[in-house]
Amino acid sequence: MLRFLRFRMMFNKTVGRWLDAKGPCSDVIVSSRIRFARNLGGILFPGRAGSAEREEIVQRVEAALQKLSIYNPDRFVANSDLSELRTKYLVERHLVSPDFARMVAQRAVFVSSDETLSVMVNEEDHLRMQILASGFDLAPALAELQSLDEALGSALGYAFSGRLGFLTACPTNVGTGMRASVLVHLPGLVLTREIEKVLRGAFQIGLAVRGLFGEGTDTQGNLFQISNQATLGKSEEEIVQSLNKIAAEVVGFERKARTYLLENLRRDIEDKVFRAEAILRSARLLNSHEATNLLGVLRLGVACGLLTGPGQTRGSAPTLGAVNELMILCRPANLQVFYDREMNQGERDALRAELVRSRLEEKADSR
Amino acid sequence: MLRFLRFRMMFNKTVGRWLDAKGPCSDVIVSSRIRFARNLGGILFPGRAGSAEREEIVQRVEAALQKLSIYNPDRFVANSDLSELRTKYLVERHLVSPDFARMVAQRAVFVSSDETLSVMVNEEDHLRMQILASGFDLAPALAELQSLDEALGSALGYAFSGRLGFLTACPTNVGTGMRASVLVHLPGLVLTREIEKVLRGAFQIGLAVRGLFGEGTDTQGNLFQISNQATLGKSEEEIVQSLNKIAAEVVGFERKARTYLLENLRRDIEDKVFRAEAILRSARLLNSHEATNLLGVLRLGVACGLLTGPGQTRGSAPTLGAVNELMILCRPANLQVFYDREMNQGERDALRAELVRSRLEEKADSR
Repeated sequence: MLRFLRFRMMFNKTVGRWLDAKGPCSDVIVSSRIRFARNLGGILFPGRAGSAEREEIVQRVEAALQKLSIYNPDRFVANSDLSELRTKYLVERHLVSPDFARMVAQRAVFVSSDETLSVMVNEEDHLRMQILASGFDLAPALAELQSLDEALGSALGYAFSGRLGFLTACPTNVGTGMRASVLVHLPGLVLTREIEKVLRGAFQIGLAVRGLFGEGTDTQGNLFQISNQATLGKSEEEIVQSLNKIAAEVVGFERKARTYLLENLRRDIEDKVFRAEAILRSARLLNSHEATNLLGVLRLGVACGLLTGPGQTRGSAPTLGAVNELMILCRPANLQVFYDREMNQGERDALRAELVRSRLEEKADSR
Repeated sequence: MLRFLRFRMMFNKTVGRWLDAKGPCSDVIVSSRIRFARNLGGILFPGRAGSAEREEIVQRVEAALQKLSIYNPDRFVANSDLSELRTKYLVERHLVSPDFARMVAQRAVFVSSDETLSVMVNEEDHLRMQILASGFDLAPALAELQSLDEALGSALGYAFSGRLGFLTACPTNVGTGMRASVLVHLPGLVLTREIEKVLRGAFQIGLAVRGLFGEGTDTQGNLFQISNQATLGKSEEEIVQSLNKIAAEVVGFERKARTYLLENLRRDIEDKVFRAEAILRSARLLNSHEATNLLGVLRLGVACGLLTGPGQTRGSAPTLGAVNELMILCRPANLQVFYDREMNQGERDALRAELVRSRLEEKADSR
């Protein structure tokens, strides 16, 4: 029963604060993320450690977390409490990695109550900790993660080389052990077909571009992750500065594309946006892929102010934050946790349509 | 200037009375049609006649029509007044045949003011006359056409053989010279995938099945024309009886399919119908093909009463007649005549969306 209560608090119907669209440049940048990879000195990396050692790592990390003010026992979930559905729910919320979801033994995750901070234990490295921030806000996220990192590091004793920096299971993470990324919404560049050019430019200066859920996933909803590749030979601040620079350029390109579209192809854009809104408000069956894509188009309409014009008589427009939230709640595992039961695809499609409809109607009613 | 005024009266914004959906079985049968092919004795068929003879035929037919109470000079339009756009407009309204539209010289057409009667002059035969009736109503349509036929025949003197019956340019029309058809809306049979079976059955007993605009056209909007093939060896009444029988069966099959769908797949049908309605009410660009298909789905929703339920908050549902009307007004030539100017495809798509939107909103406002 206690365990059940823990789940009720950890797996809930609200989404992380980083999705509130109140951060800088939220019209284009959904969120900013900083992640550190860390390992404890004197213990094998998780992939080579035995189950006793892995269990010891979980216990040591939880003990270190317990000393921090953010710690809450309800929000530290170990392997035995991580069903496939619940792990998938955490992946969909960007709180654990797809790799973490594929592991099965002696792993754990801590998630702060506002879901802006998470610490994975025994993913590829002993520790993978991240800060998620709303909008374009990398530097504050870095500062916050550095402060957590120092507190945990002094308690745990990291594996560190004076020459290489932080030691990690995979050489691509050695050095700072840091990954910085922004989740960007680029429908304007997709519609003007400039997206390839812009992403190629980012790639050429050493950044990686991926779909919504990491490597190998497609770009549903015109959402892209742009992140640094190099972790060696640069300071954390330099990495953030360089990502800041390119992300600011991408924001500029995207806004320019949107302006171009509104000035030259307004009817086509209105057609796309109003159709998307109409389907979201009316469908009785919505699969996950379609919902994400339609919400992506709706997000463009909200960001461009197309849903507040005199032609729109269906109540006030949803906010960017409400659209961000629906994008997460519509994912298969989140939908099932939201409705508190396992469902087959047909049931999910029906309840997803119902959830979207009721959320968009609420927004219309609350004017 | 006089000619211009004639066009204003002949080419207008209202559609024929046969589209009012007030006839029997209008949930399934849009309209019933009887057509007679007739030729004047002692003159070559139009395809072999010279231009002087063809001109003479036009004049003789107009003279015969002038003696009838339905005659109105504004509604007898000769070749010189039939631009490509206006001829296409008449084709889209089912008032002249596609073959008539392809001819260029010495042709004419008379259309009654309610568009339930039309007489083509110098199509394949000297005369092609038809009655269009709302819903499933073949026998009254036949009686009405027989009465017109007698009046014209006594004035004109038809080419007739005691052995063969009425002589026609194409042997397939010899005999009664009659074609009887019903325009049926079969979304239920399409969705349950029984359509092939039903249409094959109709074909096997000697009926022809075609898409909305005659031979070789696809079945946009799930609309099909079922008509008799044989014109020889059967009386007009026998032909109507046999078509009546099969059409009544098709109505039964279609209604059964709709009941099955509503009882077993209600959510899927609602999803299709509500999406179609939402897009029609929201799109800013609608091409002709999509409009016809969406209106076909909307028609199913109206016929099944799906748009009047408590879940529907967007005003009262459109009537079947309003949907029938939009299907005609959305066709390319009708749209241009409606807005009284020639347009390219982009302009048409925009104004089509505007027309549909305003019509559906009107219905919603008038509750």
